[in-house]
This record gives sequence, C-alpha cells and structure tokens, in this order.
Amino acid sequence: MSKTIKKIGVLTSGGDSPGMNAAIRAVVRTCAYHHIECIGIYRGYQGMIEGDFKEMGPRSVNNIVNKGGTILKSARSKEFMTPEGRKKAHQNLITAGIDGLVVIGGDGSFTGAEVFNSEYGFPVMGIPGTIDNDIYGTSFTLGYDTALNTVIEVIDKIRDTASSHNRLFFVEVMGRDAGHIALNAGIGAGAEEILIPEENLGLERLLDSLKKSKASGKSSSIVVIAEGDKIGKNVFELKDYVEANLPEYDVRVSVLGHMQRGGSPSCFDRVLASRLGVKAVESLLEGKSNYMVGLSGDKINLTPLEHAIKNHTEIDRELLRVSEIMST
Amino acid sequence: MSKTIKKIGVLTSGGDSPGMNAAIRAVVRTCAYHHIECIGIYRGYQGMIEGDFKEMGPRSVNNIVNKGGTILKSARSKEFMTPEGRKKAHQNLITAGIDGLVVIGGDGSFTGAEVFNSEYGFPVMGIPGTIDNDIYGTSFTLGYDTALNTVIEVIDKIRDTASSHNRLFFVEVMGRDAGHIALNAGIGAGAEEILIPEENLGLERLLDSLKKSKASGKSSSIVVIAEGDKIGKNVFELKDYVEANLPEYDVRVSVLGHMQRGGSPSCFDRVLASRLGVKAVESLLEGKSNYMVGLSGDKINLTPLEHAIKNHTEIDRELLRVSEIMST
Amino acid sequence: MSKTIKKIGVLTSGGDSPGMNAAIRAVVRTCAYHHIECIGIYRGYQGMIEGDFKEMGPRSVNNIVNKGGTILKSARSKEFMTPEGRKKAHQNLITAGIDGLVVIGGDGSFTGAEVFNSEYGFPVMGIPGTIDNDIYGTSFTLGYDTALNTVIEVIDKIRDTASSHNRLFFVEVMGRDAGHIALNAGIGAGAEEILIPEENLGLERLLDSLKKSKASGKSSSIVVIAEGDKIGKNVFELKDYVEANLPEYDVRVSVLGHMQRGGSPSCFDRVLASRLGVKAVESLLEGKSNYMVGLSGDKINLTPLEHAIKNHTEIDRELLRVSEIMST
Amino acid sequence: MSKTIKKIGVLTSGGDSPGMNAAIRAVVRTCAYHHIECIGIYRGYQGMIEGDFKEMGPRSVNNIVNKGGTILKSARSKEFMTPEGRKKAHQNLITAGIDGLVVIGGDGSFTGAEVFNSEYGFPVMGIPGTIDNDIYGTSFTLGYDTALNTVIEVIDKIRDTASSHNRLFFVEVMGRDAGHIALNAGIGAGAEEILIPEENLGLERLLDSLKKSKASGKSSSIVVIAEGDKIGKNVFELKDYVEANLPEYDVRVSVLGHMQRGGSPSCFDRVLASRLGVKAVESLLEGKSNYMVGLSGDKINLTPLEHAIKNHTEIDRELLRVSEIMST
Repeated sequence: MSKTIKKIGVLTSGGDSPGMNAAIRAVVRTCAYHHIECIGIYRGYQGMIEGDFKEMGPRSVNNIVNKGGTILKSARSKEFMTPEGRKKAHQNLITAGIDGLVVIGGDGSFTGAEVFNSEYGFPVMGIPGTIDNDIYGTSFTLGYDTALNTVIEVIDKIRDTASSHNRLFFVEVMGRDAGHIALNAGIGAGAEEILIPEENLGLERLLDSLKKSKASGKSSSIVVIAEGDKIGKNVFELKDYVEANLPEYDVRVSVLGHMQRGGSPSCFDRVLASRLGVKAVESLLEGKSNYMVGLSGDKINLTPLEHAIKNHTEIDRELLRVSEIMST
Repeated sequence: MSKTIKKIGVLTSGGDSPGMNAAIRAVVRTCAYHHIECIGIYRGYQGMIEGDFKEMGPRSVNNIVNKGGTILKSARSKEFMTPEGRKKAHQNLITAGIDGLVVIGGDGSFTGAEVFNSEYGFPVMGIPGTIDNDIYGTSFTLGYDTALNTVIEVIDKIRDTASSHNRLFFVEVMGRDAGHIALNAGIGAGAEEILIPEENLGLERLLDSLKKSKASGKSSSIVVIAEGDKIGKNVFELKDYVEANLPEYDVRVSVLGHMQRGGSPSCFDRVLASRLGVKAVESLLEGKSNYMVGLSGDKINLTPLEHAIKNHTEIDRELLRVSEIMST
Repeated sequence: MSKTIKKIGVLTSGGDSPGMNAAIRAVVRTCAYHHIECIGIYRGYQGMIEGDFKEMGPRSVNNIVNKGGTILKSARSKEFMTPEGRKKAHQNLITAGIDGLVVIGGDGSFTGAEVFNSEYGFPVMGIPGTIDNDIYGTSFTLGYDTALNTVIEVIDKIRDTASSHNRLFFVEVMGRDAGHIALNAGIGAGAEEILIPEENLGLERLLDSLKKSKASGKSSSIVVIAEGDKIGKNVFELKDYVEANLPEYDVRVSVLGHMQRGGSPSCFDRVLASRLGVKAVESLLEGKSNYMVGLSGDKINLTPLEHAIKNHTEIDRELLRVSEIMST
Repeated sequence: MSKTIKKIGVLTSGGDSPGMNAAIRAVVRTCAYHHIECIGIYRGYQGMIEGDFKEMGPRSVNNIVNKGGTILKSARSKEFMTPEGRKKAHQNLITAGIDGLVVIGGDGSFTGAEVFNSEYGFPVMGIPGTIDNDIYGTSFTLGYDTALNTVIEVIDKIRDTASSHNRLFFVEVMGRDAGHIALNAGIGAGAEEILIPEENLGLERLLDSLKKSKASGKSSSIVVIAEGDKIGKNVFELKDYVEANLPEYDVRVSVLGHMQRGGSPSCFDRVLASRLGVKAVESLLEGKSNYMVGLSGDKINLTPLEHAIKNHTEIDRELLRVSEIMST
C-alpha cells in the first residue's frame, strides 16, 4: 500500500499553453481543500534540480484563472535528462518533504516524469498542457481550444483584407507533427484548403483546388498550412510555386507563430484545467501514480503515462471530408 | 423506400445562437456538393407559412461562417401551432418543390418539426441551435461554447473592478431551466458560488459560503446566478438580503442579458456547425427523417426528435464539486 | 522656491478605470528614472489615513500595463472629508518621508487633493482617471476610450440578435451626469437614437424617430441611453411607454453596468497613461503643484486642479448632428 | 460659382484599413440625408475605369459600421496612372451623372484624385484611410487606432509566452516609412526598445539596452520593430546578430503582417469615419473641392490635397522619451 501523500509539488514544463495557470490554481486549491501542502516548482525540471521551490496556499493563486502563460514559468532542462540531474532533483524533493508530483506539460515532460518515477518510485501524475492536441488519452489538451480561437480570430482579420483585395492568403499555424490546429481552425475559418503533416495532398491537388475555387466565383481564399505539412516546400516557396503556376493569383503569406501559445484561456480550457487539476491531486491521494489525467467524452479519466507517451491522437478523418465539402 | 430528395429547405427558429449562420452555410454547401438544390426559408416557420423563400447557392453563404445571428432571421410562429398554419406551410413547400427540411433551433422548434412530420410525413432533420445546452442527444448545442466565452470575458472585466474595490458582484446569466451556462462559466470565471435551477442550495448556505470567503482572506467575490435559480428571490432581492445579513459586503448586480446570444462563434461552434450541417443533409439524402443530429463524444450521431424533445441534458454533478473545491 | 522632491506617493481613488495600472506603472518608473523613491498608497485616501504604504521599484509594476483595475485598489474615504482624517493622512506622509503626491482619479478625488494641498501646502498632481470623460482640462480621461470599445463590442453582439429577430433594444450605458459614452458609443454602434443627460429630446421625438426608422425599412434598431438621461423615465419604464405607443415594436432592455469599468486598456489609454504619468512626476520635480495633467490636442498640458474641478467638458454638439445623419 | 452637386461617387483605394466601411456608410447616409444620389464605385480607380458602379441607398449600408475591410473592395490601378485610363474614368462618371467624388485611401490615392481634378476640374474630396497614420493634415488616419489595438492584443499574447520562458521577442509591425504604429504600440505593449524608420538608434544602443534590461532584473522583453526601420538588418538578421553578441538571450521573431489591416474598427475609428464622411459630402455640397478632411485637435478640418500629399505627419518625439522612461 502506498504511504499517504502529505505534500504535493507542481510544475509546468515544455512549451507553455493557455490554461496552465488555471491548472496550477486547481492543483493548489485541491491540495488546500484536502488539507495537503502544496509547493510550486519554478521553471519545470530545471527548478526541481535547483530547488527553486515556493509554498503555495489558496490565496497565492488568486486572479490567475484567466491569465495566459504560467506563473511557475517553464523551461526545457537538459540536465534532467541525465541520471545526475534527476538525482539532485529527487534529493531536493525529499529535503522539501514533497511526496507527490503533478507535471503539467506535453510528451517530453511526461517522458521525464515516467523515467523519474521508474528510477525513484516517486508518485507522479501528468496533466496534458500543450496547444497541439496530439497527446494520446485525452480528446482535448489544455490550451488547444484557446489556440483555435486565437487562430480563427486572426484569420477573420486577414479575411477582411483578403476579401477587400481579392487576394489569396497562405496562413501558417503551429503543428510540427500534428494537424489538429490546422484542420479545425481551417474549417472554423472557412479555409479553401488545409495542409497537414498527416496527409500529403500533393501540389497538383492544391493547384486544382485553387483553380476550381476561382472558377466557382470565389474572389478571395485562405489556405491554412501546418508548420509540419508534408508538401515539401516551406510556406514562402509554396507562394512562389503557386504564383508561378497560377499567375491569376496574388499570394500573401502570414506566419502566426508564438501568439498562438498565449492569451487568456477560453472557458472550455479553464473548466478543463479545473477538472484535470482536481483529478490529478485526488488520484495521487488515492495512491495512484504514473498516469495522465485526460478528457474522454464528457468524463475525466486516467491513462498510463507510458501509453500517453507512446501513442498519438490521430486527426479525425471525417473532418477532412467536412473541410472539402465546406470549400464547395 | 423513401423517394430521392432533390431540394432541401433550411430555416432557423426560436432564440438565435452563435453558429446558426455557420450551420446554414454548411447545409447550403453540402447540398451544392451533392448537386441538390437548397432553399433558405426566412423567419422560421412563419416564413414557411408566408412562402418567404430564397434560392441559395454556395456563394450566397460566403463570409458568414464567422457572423453571429442568423441571415435567415428567426421568429416564433403562433400560426404554425395551428393545423391551418401547418397546412399552408406544407402547401408552400410542395409548390416550391422542397422535399426535405432542416430545422435549426431548440426544443420548441423540434416539436414543430415533429408534429409537421407526423401530419404530412415530410422528411425533417433537426440541428440543435441554442445557447442553453439543455437538449438531450448532444453534449454541446450550437452557440453554447460561444456564450460561455462571452460570459467569462464579461466577468473578467467585472472582476477587475470588483477586485479594485473589494466588492461582491452578483452576475445573472441566461438559463431559465438549465444551469449549464452558470455552472461552466462560473467555474471558468472563478466564481465563489453558483446558483442554478437544478439545485436549491438555500440562502443559509450562500451566507455561510460568503462568510467563509471573507474569513479565508478573499477581498472580492463573484457569485454567478442562472435566471431560473430556485433560491426564491430575484437577483436584486438577493442583493438586499445579503447586504442585510452580511453588512460587511457591498454588493453590485450585473444582468448580462441578450449579449449572450450574439457575437462571432468560437472555433468549436463553427466546426460543430459544419459537421452537423453535413450530417443533417446527408442523413436526409440517405432517406432518414425525424432525427436530431448531435455530438456524442467525438462523433456526430442521430437521436430521434421525439427523444430529443422529451428528455433533457442533466448538468454534470461532478462540476458542482469542482466548483466547491475551486472556491477554497 | 519649492524644496526638492525626494519621495513621491501615488494612489488611485474613486471609481476605477482601465489604464489606472498603466498610470501607476508610469509614475513608478518615472520616479525610478529620476532616482526618486516611490511609495504606493493602497485604497486611496483611506490607505493614506491608515498608513497602508508599500515601496515600489520599477520591477513591482512589471506586466501590469495591460491589466484592468488598479493594483493599488481604490476606495471612497469619508474620513478624508474630515480635518481629523486629513491630519492623520498628512502625519503618515511626513513619517514616511513622502514629499509629493500623485492622485489618479476623478472630480471627487481632485477635490480631496486640493483641500489637502490648501491645508498643508503639500505638493499634489492629479491624473484624470474615469471612464466618464467629463473632466475639464483634458480631451480624454483615462479609461474612456477603453469603455467606448467595451460598449460597442457588447452592442455589436446585441445587434446580432436584434437583427435576427427584428427587435428594438434599449441599451443603458454609464454616464450619470455626462453623455460622452452614450453619444460616442451610440454613433460607433450605429444607434438609431441616443439619449443623454445634456439634452432632453423629449418622448415625442423618440416615438417619431422610431416610427421613421420603421418606415425607412430598418428591421431592427438600437437606442443607447445614458444612466442620467433627462427623459424622465428609467429604461424599463421607457420600454413600457414605447411598447404602449408603438405596438409594432418588441423592446428588449440591456443595462451594461460595471463591465464598462473593467478590461484590458486600449492602446490609446495605455499610451495616454504613460504620458500623463511622466508629466505628473516631472511636474512635481519641477516644483509645480496643484495641477491636473491632461491631453489637449496632441500635447500633454497642465490645468489648475481648481479649474478641473469647477468646470466640465461639454459634449461635442457636432456629434448630435452626426448621429442624426447616421441614423438616416 | 460651382454648380450644384446632385450625385456623388465614393470609392476605396490602396491598402484597406478598418473603418473604411464606416466611412462608406457615412458618405452614403449623408447623401441620403441631403437627398443627393450616391453611387458606389468598386475596386477603386480601376472600377471607375471599368464602370463598375452600383447605386447605394441608406439601407445598402446597414450593419457594416462594425465590419473590417471595404464592401466596395480596393485595388491599385496602373491604368489610372495613364491619361487614357483617366479619360475613360471621367467618361464613365459623366455618363453615370456623377458630379462629385469621395476618395477613401492614402497618399497614392490622393495623388490620383488630385491629378484627376487638375485635368478635368472634377470635384474631389479625400478621406484619409490607412493604418499607417502618416498623412499630413489629420492627427489620426482611419484604421490607425484599430491597428494599434490589434498589435497590442497580439503582443499581450506573445508576452504571456515570453514571460513564461524568460525569452526575448522581436515583433515586426507595419510601417515602411512611418514609425507611428511601432512607437505607439510599443509604448502600449510595454516594449523594451522600439525601432522606427525615422531614427537610427544603431545596433550598439540596442545591445546596450538589452544588457541593461537583463541587469535590471527583467526576465523577458519585447522589442517592437517597424518594417522600415533603419538599422540595416531585417528582423531575422537582427535576431542572429543579437544572439551572437548576447548569448544569454534566446530570441524569437514574430512578423505580424496583414492581420493589422483587418478586424472590426474601434469606437474611435467608427466615430472618426462618421464625422469624416459627413464633412466630405457636405464640403462637396458647399462647392469645395480638392481637399482632404481630417481631425485636428477635436475638430474636423480641411487640408488641401496638395499639402496632404507633399507633407508627412512627423512622429511625436516626446514619445521616444516616454518609451525610454517606461523601459526603466
């Protein structure tokens, strides 16, 4: 039987995402609710190694539910990838009396947590925080819904000018390995065509699609492109290619970049963060370890960290069809 | 075997909600994709009775995916509640060659559709469009997610001034019969207490909760109240009651009202609208009738209109507990 | 000759407004830039009386330029209206070594500052912070521009639903004594008619205007009403009156309330706050006292506090005409 | 004496900007108010050459006051730079009975208007519509205030992630020849340093400033850079340069691009558009020609087109100092 947890550490790690602060708040307040101490660990695993800790009570997380970013800061730690680094980190946790850990982050952060757990048997729980939505075991990662809204609000603005000048815009969104943002924001923004890492539509199809669009009477168009698309050209080369092949088009490029990671979280992300935070802490208190909490249908469930790391959430292929129909 | 559908009518009915335009667009473009004609019917059933029809091609729904409200307008029709009204409506559909109907609306609109179908055997499909999220058969109604974001953005602003003056605010949100908006937006906005129609917490508990909040060091608080809460006092009476019993509190009231129905839809609502519109039209084309399309987990499914009307989506009681923990 | 200022106190007083934090930041950093100490005084004059002071360096105002509300909190102090209260306050300033004061607030706050200065000869400078824009000596008060944007964003949402249902909305905005918000937001939101405290158009004209609007083919309309309008009926009585006299109209009411005071400040308000803060501190350092800093044309200027208090900014009557033409 | 104007044409030309639609609406409704006919000319001067005209009554501009872009579309016309092009355009105006022209656009558009006026004596009035705010004769161009808000909202999001990771961001904003956007949005967004076309601070000063920033305890910073800055390196080269010289910095680049031209106009821009539209039409009706309407202080005034074209609005050098103080 696992010994009773009395003090929980919480950290954010990897790329930040909207909702991380709401999740920190949920972890801190759930600890307080159960009369457990809570320690904030700064700058992810690096702060764990350096002992950058701070006690957190329910009032230390006032007025952060609606703030983007993470008050605990985030970082990527090379040192934590070494056994020596992890040894120091473990020593610091022991010294501080921390006996359970909640890690808010993505794949890489969970891998760190799992290795740490396997070496020291230290109780860990993961909360999926990344805008990319590519983590297996949850239908929504924290920050994904907010990022989608950020993207469509920007494309709505771009559409104003595209439509005033009868122009074609290529909009690059985040997603090195996963097309979730591109696919959903593309449908939401009414994109003509969507290029994602999971599927190589080929350059011919893009040209065809743009030709058809012109023929069907559309005066302006948006193409949404994930960073990691497989078309073999970056977004600026693609512009040149299309302009060379379809001289009737005047193409503009917009690379949205890091703004997609920031901003006040959507209601969906705030509620999700609250539910995940409660579940993560209460699961540790029930003696569970080495799981990620996630959303499945309408319920919060647990997925072994190992599975969350090894697998990926596939894109919903129905959406590719919806996108095609919508661009009629 | 059902005869083949060749011309589909689409209307919006009842209270409008963000995403209705995106759903109209989806219906129109799915028709075009399948080389079916599509007719827009203005002002809901009333326009059906008056023959207020307009042919819609894929270009008539350009640039509306991001617009609040409904370009087809909405209305409540008393005449359609009479057999004579429905007879006129049916005659108009026949005259116009319309042989399938997509109704975007809520409970009342679906009841109209079902009666119409039962009397004339006319193929109908429902798309749940209402901000209240109280329709059985879908985990999200169109517009609900947008309304949640509208509410928390406003409460975020109210919190600025509440917190600057150490004040208590009572914020009334929509929801005569259902507490979904209050409960989720309340958690999202970090409310101290949430009053909903489904549960009478009692006045004593509200006072206790506010006393505890003061004692725990909170300087300002928000209480979110659904229109239809069961506490037996309206929001202004409640203010007087609390100020009489807890003189340390200076209460302000804010009634959010109709702004909750408007605004550009969230990405979630736009994608949902697109998926529901595709499914509604393709289901009619497959010979199905008398269903509502809805979201179940990650999939679009069908629920018999009869069930959608008779049942209601319960609030998630786990959220009441999350709310309580979050206000620690 | 005035003695050299070495330590400046800053406080916010009266109703809060967006941009107050940006002004606090500007005061604090201008002090740091000139190697002067800066003390934050909490809860306005009440905190001055209670000695609720905190030293502020340039890093204590990090990341607040974009936050609504005021980190120094605000309050109305009855005690400061008494000679005893002001005596205590003065004693506290002397004890803390504060020898100059920047007051961010409105009319009432400036009156307090002027009395305090007249009694103790204490150097004071005022920064106009109020959403109402009714302070003489500046063409824009801090927070006014943000409040205008808040109002039109909400009315844009209301218009979505108004236009979907062919309805008339009465929208009440802040402004007990001044119609600046109503007049400008009314024009910005495309209101049919605007009711302000400065001018009693009379009920007949409102009915005429609404009749004309219907006749001209408008299907929905917005009337913007300042709290302090002179029409002699509150907004709910007005609804009843219009519905009784123009039965073709279905009127809805929306009272915007305190949300108008909150929210992230607009760029205009942030830049204005920065300029006013610099000028307030540097004027004190130059030995000036008893002035308000304000915007005149494109320049920051000084107005004696006495004038700022006794006079009011008139509404621009040209705008009444613009509004009438726009509702053609 | 000038003959009486009976039919006014209105067009938008050059890069679009938020508020152009509000200005079109104002022109159309002011014509209606004065019982003058109004003709919308599509795609700027090119549509004038092609006779792409449409009659516009007060109801044709319903619900556009809040829309970005321009419903009349915009374009740059090479043909209008030739005498033959202008001759065709003039012929079309005469044929359509148009006897006055309102041109909404920037420098280039005004040059076209002036040449056209000088050749044919055709009455023209200019409305300054461009986000760059570099037009002489008005303290605000249409769309500039909205663009500032768009930029700071995006930088607020970037700041969330910058601050979570202790990073430095270079944000490139529009402004090939003018630093108004960079300077004001930079102050509004709390930028560490601002690079503008009007002033070459030099690379040394940038490095110094960043070193000082680190030393003063700032963990993250934003540098705002106008497209046309004079530092001699593009934003990506600048990143490499800074990282080479200050290895303690991890720099990210964000190029905001065309989103700055779109979006729903701010209240300021909507009111300004309404006032400018009224003045432009009424000035034509008074027999005036060859002027630009603009904002001077709080009043709308006229500037000869010739002056508006030849001069430029200088940046306010006081703001450079404010920016320096604010980054203390």
